[in-house]
Amino acid sequence: MIKFFEKAPYSPVEYSYDVEEILYKGKSKYQEIKVIRNLYFGKMLILDDVVQITERDEFFYHEMLTHVVMHSLPEPKKVVVIGGGDGGVVREVLKHKSVEKVYFIEIDEMVINVSKKYFPDVASGIDNTRVEIKIMDGAEFIRKRKLSDIDAVIIDSTDIVGFARSLFTIEFFTNVKNCLTDKGMFVTHTESLHFHKDMVVEIQEVLKKVFPVVDIYTAPIATYPGNWWAFAVASKNLSPREIRRKPKIKTKYYNDEIHHQAFMPKGLYEKLMQRKLQW
Amino acid sequence: MIKFFEKAPYSPVEYSYDVEEILYKGKSKYQEIKVIRNLYFGKMLILDDVVQITERDEFFYHEMLTHVVMHSLPEPKKVVVIGGGDGGVVREVLKHKSVEKVYFIEIDEMVINVSKKYFPDVASGIDNTRVEIKIMDGAEFIRKRKLSDIDAVIIDSTDIVGFARSLFTIEFFTNVKNCLTDKGMFVTHTESLHFHKDMVVEIQEVLKKVFPVVDIYTAPIATYPGNWWAFAVASKNLSPREIRRKPKIKTKYYNDEIHHQAFMPKGLYEKLMQRKLQW
Repeated sequence: MIKFFEKAPYSPVEYSYDVEEILYKGKSKYQEIKVIRNLYFGKMLILDDVVQITERDEFFYHEMLTHVVMHSLPEPKKVVVIGGGDGGVVREVLKHKSVEKVYFIEIDEMVINVSKKYFPDVASGIDNTRVEIKIMDGAEFIRKRKLSDIDAVIIDSTDIVGFARSLFTIEFFTNVKNCLTDKGMFVTHTESLHFHKDMVVEIQEVLKKVFPVVDIYTAPIATYPGNWWAFAVASKNLSPREIRRKPKIKTKYYNDEIHHQAFMPKGLYEKLMQRKLQW
Repeated sequence: MIKFFEKAPYSPVEYSYDVEEILYKGKSKYQEIKVIRNLYFGKMLILDDVVQITERDEFFYHEMLTHVVMHSLPEPKKVVVIGGGDGGVVREVLKHKSVEKVYFIEIDEMVINVSKKYFPDVASGIDNTRVEIKIMDGAEFIRKRKLSDIDAVIIDSTDIVGFARSLFTIEFFTNVKNCLTDKGMFVTHTESLHFHKDMVVEIQEVLKKVFPVVDIYTAPIATYPGNWWAFAVASKNLSPREIRRKPKIKTKYYNDEIHHQAFMPKGLYEKLMQRKLQW
């Protein structure tokens, strides 16, 4: 049996997977793209030797990245998705009937094409008429946008290194804020609370310089090292802890109970931000 | 750099760790015991090629296995700890001043001795005068006990295979119930909610045949494959979701907010038990 050894940045545990079959291997301008098949996880999308999604468990990440913010918004109409070339977040966003327009900003067109071919279910929303695809840097899209008409900006980036770093600066967050409506929200993953606690804190600190409301929720993701995945969410005034529309969409994991439970307890959040958590 | 490749049962992801130094390697009557040093996790205790604890993050597991039940009990005096030869659970139990007696039942004395030498902090409670060590099978200890005077039975077993299986039968659970006071509680880990969902459900089902109250809580453990670790808790009448004594002990992770948040939301629990969760 061939094995795939993941090369996740900053992870003190190395993950490896049995490879039943290598379905695709190619190189884009930005990264190496692989699709392998594993007996348990099904097809797996791998970018620069880091697992991005698996057929079996992609919904944990996509649902949790998308639906917390989407249910905290009273009536989201325009949504920007940056990254997430597999289309998983776009698919989840489109489940919300109020959504009229999804700007889908992906820097690497090859990821979209590979996903459409090998992950048709995940990519199923990409060609929807409500979706406008732009192959470009998400930071540039946000910087150039002059209107404040976006209800949600969702970042589904690779690990926060290399070209993804431009999405985690005070300039970028300021530009995001300028694009948002008064009720708008921003959400991004910020790596593992086990292994990247300092990065989780630093991103919160930068966001707090820009947004009045900044918070953290987590979700258990089996295929991301450290698993205890932290999401940063920010808004101009609405709390993301509150659900403003009862969930009516079909999901495998997310629901209103999970929404509330996912947020970091306030005592733990305070200790985290004071850098008093010892692990 | 030498690498240690974990051989966890049933895990579709294989974990590996850089080994700075092999500090100990021996073989007991029951298993191979290794202590290695990893730059990030510090010393790691490994039984039959499965990571049991690491210096850096052992408290997540030990605190969550111990303190949920201990804070749900009005005044725990007598506690049985089965397994957990490293002493981590015993250390946590002893933090509760009401505890007069800990029966510490470990089948493999060599694990205790290795832990005392290499993990003195974890093993710090083992020689406490309130602790009575018995080197024997936990199932036998429970079967032979004639009194119903135990407030908490805590199982800290290795993975639920091999000799640990005898701790997950209807006979054993019935005997546990007979040992408990009317307010007594039982808790055990039941592997990962990601990777061992069926086992989690089956253990709940067996427990429900014996105990009126059965529940699940979870904790994120970075070094156990699947990470999203499920704990089964059972009692004759008290709900473990309720805290009956305000936490006053010193912990790194557990607190009253974590206690409440850790329990599986009721909707998710129902879907799990109906085998409707699709992952």
